[in-house]
Amino acid sequence: MGIVLGPNRYGKAQTRVVRVDRDGDRHTLRDLNVSVALAGDLAATHLTGDNSQVLPTDTQKNTVYAFARRHGIASAEEFGLLLARHFVDSQPGISRARVDIEQYDWRRLGPHSFERDGGSTRTATVRYDGDRAEVIAGLSDLVLLNSTDSEFRGYVVDPYTTLPETDDRILATAVDARWRYAGTAPPGGFDAAHAAVRQALVDAFVGTYSRSLQQTLYAMGERVLTDRPDVVEVRLALPNKHHLLVDLSPFDLDNPNSVFVAADRPYGLIEGTVTRDDAPPELGQW
Amino acid sequence: MGIVLGPNRYGKAQTRVVRVDRDGDRHTLRDLNVSVALAGDLAATHLTGDNSQVLPTDTQKNTVYAFARRHGIASAEEFGLLLARHFVDSQPGISRARVDIEQYDWRRLGPHSFERDGGSTRTATVRYDGDRAEVIAGLSDLVLLNSTDSEFRGYVVDPYTTLPETDDRILATAVDARWRYAGTAPPGGFDAAHAAVRQALVDAFVGTYSRSLQQTLYAMGERVLTDRPDVVEVRLALPNKHHLLVDLSPFDLDNPNSVFVAADRPYGLIEGTVTRDDAPPELGQW
Amino acid sequence: MGIVLGPNRYGKAQTRVVRVDRDGDRHTLRDLNVSVALAGDLAATHLTGDNSQVLPTDTQKNTVYAFARRHGIASAEEFGLLLARHFVDSQPGISRARVDIEQYDWRRLGPHSFERDGGSTRTATVRYDGDRAEVIAGLSDLVLLNSTDSEFRGYVVDPYTTLPETDDRILATAVDARWRYAGTAPPGGFDAAHAAVRQALVDAFVGTYSRSLQQTLYAMGERVLTDRPDVVEVRLALPNKHHLLVDLSPFDLDNPNSVFVAADRPYGLIEGTVTRDDAPPELGQW
Amino acid sequence: MGIVLGPNRYGKAQTRVVRVDRDGDRHTLRDLNVSVALAGDLAATHLTGDNSQVLPTDTQKNTVYAFARRHGIASAEEFGLLLARHFVDSQPGISRARVDIEQYDWRRLGPHSFERDGGSTRTATVRYDGDRAEVIAGLSDLVLLNSTDSEFRGYVVDPYTTLPETDDRILATAVDARWRYAGTAPPGGFDAAHAAVRQALVDAFVGTYSRSLQQTLYAMGERVLTDRPDVVEVRLALPNKHHLLVDLSPFDLDNPNSVFVAADRPYGLIEGTVTRDDAPPELGQW
Repeated sequence: MGIVLGPNRYGKAQTRVVRVDRDGDRHTLRDLNVSVALAGDLAATHLTGDNSQVLPTDTQKNTVYAFARRHGIASAEEFGLLLARHFVDSQPGISRARVDIEQYDWRRLGPHSFERDGGSTRTATVRYDGDRAEVIAGLSDLVLLNSTDSEFRGYVVDPYTTLPETDDRILATAVDARWRYAGTAPPGGFDAAHAAVRQALVDAFVGTYSRSLQQTLYAMGERVLTDRPDVVEVRLALPNKHHLLVDLSPFDLDNPNSVFVAADRPYGLIEGTVTRDDAPPELGQW
Repeated sequence: MGIVLGPNRYGKAQTRVVRVDRDGDRHTLRDLNVSVALAGDLAATHLTGDNSQVLPTDTQKNTVYAFARRHGIASAEEFGLLLARHFVDSQPGISRARVDIEQYDWRRLGPHSFERDGGSTRTATVRYDGDRAEVIAGLSDLVLLNSTDSEFRGYVVDPYTTLPETDDRILATAVDARWRYAGTAPPGGFDAAHAAVRQALVDAFVGTYSRSLQQTLYAMGERVLTDRPDVVEVRLALPNKHHLLVDLSPFDLDNPNSVFVAADRPYGLIEGTVTRDDAPPELGQW
Repeated sequence: MGIVLGPNRYGKAQTRVVRVDRDGDRHTLRDLNVSVALAGDLAATHLTGDNSQVLPTDTQKNTVYAFARRHGIASAEEFGLLLARHFVDSQPGISRARVDIEQYDWRRLGPHSFERDGGSTRTATVRYDGDRAEVIAGLSDLVLLNSTDSEFRGYVVDPYTTLPETDDRILATAVDARWRYAGTAPPGGFDAAHAAVRQALVDAFVGTYSRSLQQTLYAMGERVLTDRPDVVEVRLALPNKHHLLVDLSPFDLDNPNSVFVAADRPYGLIEGTVTRDDAPPELGQW
Repeated sequence: MGIVLGPNRYGKAQTRVVRVDRDGDRHTLRDLNVSVALAGDLAATHLTGDNSQVLPTDTQKNTVYAFARRHGIASAEEFGLLLARHFVDSQPGISRARVDIEQYDWRRLGPHSFERDGGSTRTATVRYDGDRAEVIAGLSDLVLLNSTDSEFRGYVVDPYTTLPETDDRILATAVDARWRYAGTAPPGGFDAAHAAVRQALVDAFVGTYSRSLQQTLYAMGERVLTDRPDVVEVRLALPNKHHLLVDLSPFDLDNPNSVFVAADRPYGLIEGTVTRDDAPPELGQW
């Protein structure tokens, strides 16, 4: 009954890098938050403090900045691929790398002026094991709302049920989506692919008459897979941002789906995967 | 040397109310976070726990919902005026009310579908003392960035100075603005007035060649007062969201304003007021 | 009807400084978050971008670190006094300084080992105008709860009232307190004074049978002024962290003050000042 | 190449429940944040919106409150076990349940008065598949610091290395720990087991001369497994809360490990598992 080291990894989290490119007077921005995690032959540092296989997290941070200058940032995904391959291919002690990136978008106001787009955050996760690379794109905090075309009925009733059925409610959520590409070069490039998937998710949310948030979730994933042959799997986490109808009867007022409480906690949370039945296995947990 | 009760107030903070209006199939949303604070003859509850002059904060919350149904929400400012006047005019023990509102905007995706606009938050503060009402509109978290046309030179040098002068830097900030209207009915209405002030702030930020963030601040406030005769005073708080040029020389790389660290803390904070010299006195602190 | 510059200030916010002192093997920590705001003859930088009176915020940050080394950190308050006096006394263009400090406390685990005390944060605000200095100490996020000895009855009933009276409820709050000292050297020093005021606040909360949160607020302020002659004024902001009794009757269960929802929003907010009737005027807003 | 539903689950997140127990005048508190996730035969709701197998998340919330009254909260873990078993055993369509609980601790101030202990949060995760139940206890945000007895040397040097070696640094982290029990009834009960594991983690952090944070991580996990035969596996995530020595040489000051910047981002993140070599397989991902 020995005690042993199990799975482990380490890296530098949340390196904030902004790259400005100049085409004469007209500038463009890439604004990223980069987190690196490396795994490999790291038993010595855990067991004895021998760091001879450890590339310091400070060096990982430096690499992010140097690569942003040397290679530019074509897209979050390509930048992640460059970094993941570099760490594994250059370090004998490192056999696997994961790079997680958040991208903050900016709307153009002028040739070199921008407003931060405070809506959803774009995400990218790259995994590389020295052989195969995997790219998972995503977005978080895309807050969507339908003020009708949503019902919730026919559910299980047990001794703890008090919820009344409804045939017209507000359905609102903050979409957290992750989708896995078949390869590392989607047709049209990663930026266009991301925009297309985002649009598919929004269109499916808007266009689905919803009998449950699960049904909307599946419709969103299915739409992405239908529209984009280069995507093999979609994972969605959809909090049900409850809008509760206020009881105004104590004040002799009706409330025909007019005035709602936007509630914080608790909230429903619906999580699901929509996948192709021939999707290749993934390299690791998402 | 007695101990006495000084200034005091109480109220319900952060009542979240969403009002949906229907024009056939086409819906519109108002999404507000309403905080009420009341002051008046409240010594008894403090000194003896006699609550006979206390309108419970629970009742204030109910009033927000009932008013949203009964009167609708023409704008955050008008809703605040209705509430502030109601509490003071209906409660003998209450002589002053302050209503603070945050409005969350949604972009239309369809006749009854919306995406939360995650950028800046609109704010409104209404004060009423039984006689005069005052409306202060505002916005927070409007994040703007110029990637050039900003310098910082000619400042005081003392024994603790290490900052080098620069004639080209990124200037970025998260605008927190509050502006006071001359009356309670700006020409064109509160929504149009808010949009126009927002545009003036953005235009001035974009169009100002900046020698200091203070200079940009003044230009922003001045632009609002020039464009909008109905505004008498503008207060701005501008954090300097530092983008620090990375030293890449250890890696034999140059860095001609290309790669930056987006830093969190510490940050410069520039606060200032731009006002008409004949602005009427305000009812209270902002 | 000219446009003019009104009140303004600038400074470096949130400089995080940790000072370690060694007495042989035994170390002590001071862990501060320091924000500086300066005001004075700053019209030129606003109007023309002339920075000749501007001490850069970067220099302010450097000064915080250099002073931590040169003078040590006897207490947050004394460190704030040193900094505020330095900026005003050494800079001809600066006539007023405000230093805001948060102190994070650590519990000792060993001679040089510590656990962060995640409870309330200690605060200190120092103002100096070249002549007089003012010290306001405080704390935030001190979360207290009495599970009985609280009632709420006899309040105003209006058409929007639905709240039932109660003679036994949970009373919980997150204390935000600020108190102003008579001078800049309370007997026993700032650390002991802070501990004593904190204890007085807690004792009064615990020991007061509460008919309203306002009554508890006044009792807390009064206790501080009674116990500490060196304190001239206390300001308290007490959110009412509502614990709502759950209606379990649909499940044939009683609920004799047994099971509660800890609610987030909305919440009551009670704010008040307790002061000596001969308190000297303050230097500025808190 | 069909499109299919993959792994999915749903539930109610963040139900906040406080239970007060009375022993005469002396009260005790349990303050929990409960999240439920259920999985099973849920294809119909995703594919067609048929909710006949869906127990609404609202009902799950009700169950949390009803169980808190009916069964009490002996410990977070036992409460989670009751809930997980209930959902699976009572619902034909549900085959697996996961219950995640955060417990907020309160220090006693009097017979019915408490102060929220703002330090680390206790966590519990229970999984049940109709056959086997698994309990994973944990804690988060336990912030620990050693002001010496930490070095970092002998690491890989590559072209992006700039970090100097050090033989004396501050080592600080915010411990996030999860440990899996061998069964569902640790000797002495869950509360005592939790306290003992927490103490083992703290003791190992304090007592380990650290050559890397990885070494400290392993020592912490090993100590838990050595002290507690009822624990089979420990997972730790340790952010390296960097304290950077300030360069004071521009001000003619030395800095012998005296004044530090407490940095926010980026940060190192060390994650690892320490396990018994005969640990039984786990029911699911943590």
